[in-house]
Amino acid sequence: MADLNKNVKLVQRPVAMPTAACWALAEDPIPSPEAGQALVAIKHISLDPAQRAWMNEDCYVGCVALNSTMWAFAVGEVMNSLHPGFKTGDLVRGIMGVQQYSVMHGDDLELLDVKDEALSEHLGLYGMTGLTAYFGVTDLVDIKPGDQVLISTSAGAVGSIAAQIAKLKGAYVVGIAGGPEKVDFCVNEIGLDGCIDYKNHDFETRLAELMPDGVDIYFDNVGVPILDYVLKQINEEATIIICGAINQFQNMSDVSGPSQYLRIPERKASLLGFTYFHYSDRFHEGVKQLRDWIESGQIRSHEHPIDGLENFHDSFMKLFNGKHIGKLIINP
Amino acid sequence: MADLNKNVKLVQRPVAMPTAACWALAEDPIPSPEAGQALVAIKHISLDPAQRAWMNEDCYVGCVALNSTMWAFAVGEVMNSLHPGFKTGDLVRGIMGVQQYSVMHGDDLELLDVKDEALSEHLGLYGMTGLTAYFGVTDLVDIKPGDQVLISTSAGAVGSIAAQIAKLKGAYVVGIAGGPEKVDFCVNEIGLDGCIDYKNHDFETRLAELMPDGVDIYFDNVGVPILDYVLKQINEEATIIICGAINQFQNMSDVSGPSQYLRIPERKASLLGFTYFHYSDRFHEGVKQLRDWIESGQIRSHEHPIDGLENFHDSFMKLFNGKHIGKLIINP
Repeated sequence: MADLNKNVKLVQRPVAMPTAACWALAEDPIPSPEAGQALVAIKHISLDPAQRAWMNEDCYVGCVALNSTMWAFAVGEVMNSLHPGFKTGDLVRGIMGVQQYSVMHGDDLELLDVKDEALSEHLGLYGMTGLTAYFGVTDLVDIKPGDQVLISTSAGAVGSIAAQIAKLKGAYVVGIAGGPEKVDFCVNEIGLDGCIDYKNHDFETRLAELMPDGVDIYFDNVGVPILDYVLKQINEEATIIICGAINQFQNMSDVSGPSQYLRIPERKASLLGFTYFHYSDRFHEGVKQLRDWIESGQIRSHEHPIDGLENFHDSFMKLFNGKHIGKLIINP
Repeated sequence: MADLNKNVKLVQRPVAMPTAACWALAEDPIPSPEAGQALVAIKHISLDPAQRAWMNEDCYVGCVALNSTMWAFAVGEVMNSLHPGFKTGDLVRGIMGVQQYSVMHGDDLELLDVKDEALSEHLGLYGMTGLTAYFGVTDLVDIKPGDQVLISTSAGAVGSIAAQIAKLKGAYVVGIAGGPEKVDFCVNEIGLDGCIDYKNHDFETRLAELMPDGVDIYFDNVGVPILDYVLKQINEEATIIICGAINQFQNMSDVSGPSQYLRIPERKASLLGFTYFHYSDRFHEGVKQLRDWIESGQIRSHEHPIDGLENFHDSFMKLFNGKHIGKLIINP
């Protein structure tokens, strides 16, 4: 065990995108657990767009206090437990923060049932991103064979899983990604029927080419302007699932609403929203189904791991500048 | 029978709100029906916000040609029929236009079953506005006793019916209207639990006062900024029904989207849209139910009739400047 706990603190709130000045890499003494708590050695830390929201003073789930360790989902191994539910060696998950060690109350830790997969999969496929994808495309909408499904951020951690689930339900699935490398991944690695390169194509023209029968279901992670372009091409009784709006994290105090929203009444469409947290009582079901699909080879999971907390800022920015494929993870 | 057919033609497309220069009052020969057609003497003409959309070149249902008679729903009496489905004296409804006489193909006319009610009710309560209200609050959402329901334009033709239906389903219903006269109508004439005077109250403060338990269902006829104010106060799993957006008719080429739409995923809410036309195969059911409610005294219908086609422009503008209560009708 190291003598100190390396951790990343939030020292300045960002206005739009975080800058390196928002963070300070610190070394603090490793804390000791008290009654009911456990000390966890963190193995993998999740990088998620939701963390950008947690940096705001008015975030819907509370916010990270200034000069405290940045929040993050993480998985690790229990080193010392004073909680009856955990023992040394247990593998656990929780919002343990961007650090090497964390003392957590046992009630805030989840004991993981790790089978053949890498522990890190419990941050991605079996964590917030995989479960977000799973519930988004299975609970809010009933995808049927032949449905015309469009998925944004289809090379990302959520979108790539959502798109593969839509495919295995028999839909015609088109992705949205930035650059030829990601388009290649979407079409040739995860088997989508097509992919719009929003950086190099005229979006509306390309959408009409790839989806000449219109859009029945759109899974949106990005917000406007793409949301507006899609609304113009939705079919009657289409469903738009709002999972996130990564474009909007650029300027949270001045979010752009979809100016094409009146296409919704015109076409008797529905716009439905959810977050991962709405399904906390069904995570077990989601993991079981995703594991079945992985084991039968019907879906594939992709990770983009990065080593070292000194790389936290650059790693976090990859969420927003598009420089990764699949699930971003940092190993402390 | 008069010798000429007085009618109102669209002679200029409006950019935002129509001006008097958009219209010309004309007198043309009364047309004669050909095989399959019928000549109808129009008794009452409906004024509806949808007509503003029909004046645009890119309206979703096509548009009124320049220098032709303005489209409008109307009811009247068949004078001469060369269609086997209609005979002289039949009472009919159709998009017969802003005029005194219309020659219509029989396939575009609907034979009315008029009971004790005034014929004009088949434009309001038993027409587009009443049926829009009926399907909007009964088909897209299942209102239950105790639900917290907010209805915009609650002194208008659609909103006043929607609000009364929500009340008879046992909901706590708050309206939105402009000015003390309309607020008095909503609370004392149609029995709502409260009404926000958006012209004289601070909207968000008043909403929080009248709906301290939040909003479960919002029936929206107006769009932003009110839609955004409401989104901030919706409950978990709220439903927003988009029926129209009268505010947006001011500038159709630059509609404002709801910038608070990310409250929808935050709260697992739904935004659902529809138009009257989506329910054309169920109008009969709607009329039957509305008639039952009227006969048992559970809802009341209000009309605002105006005489004379020379008053068309001023009458039409009442839809947008808030100077009417209930259903606006012009008698040619």
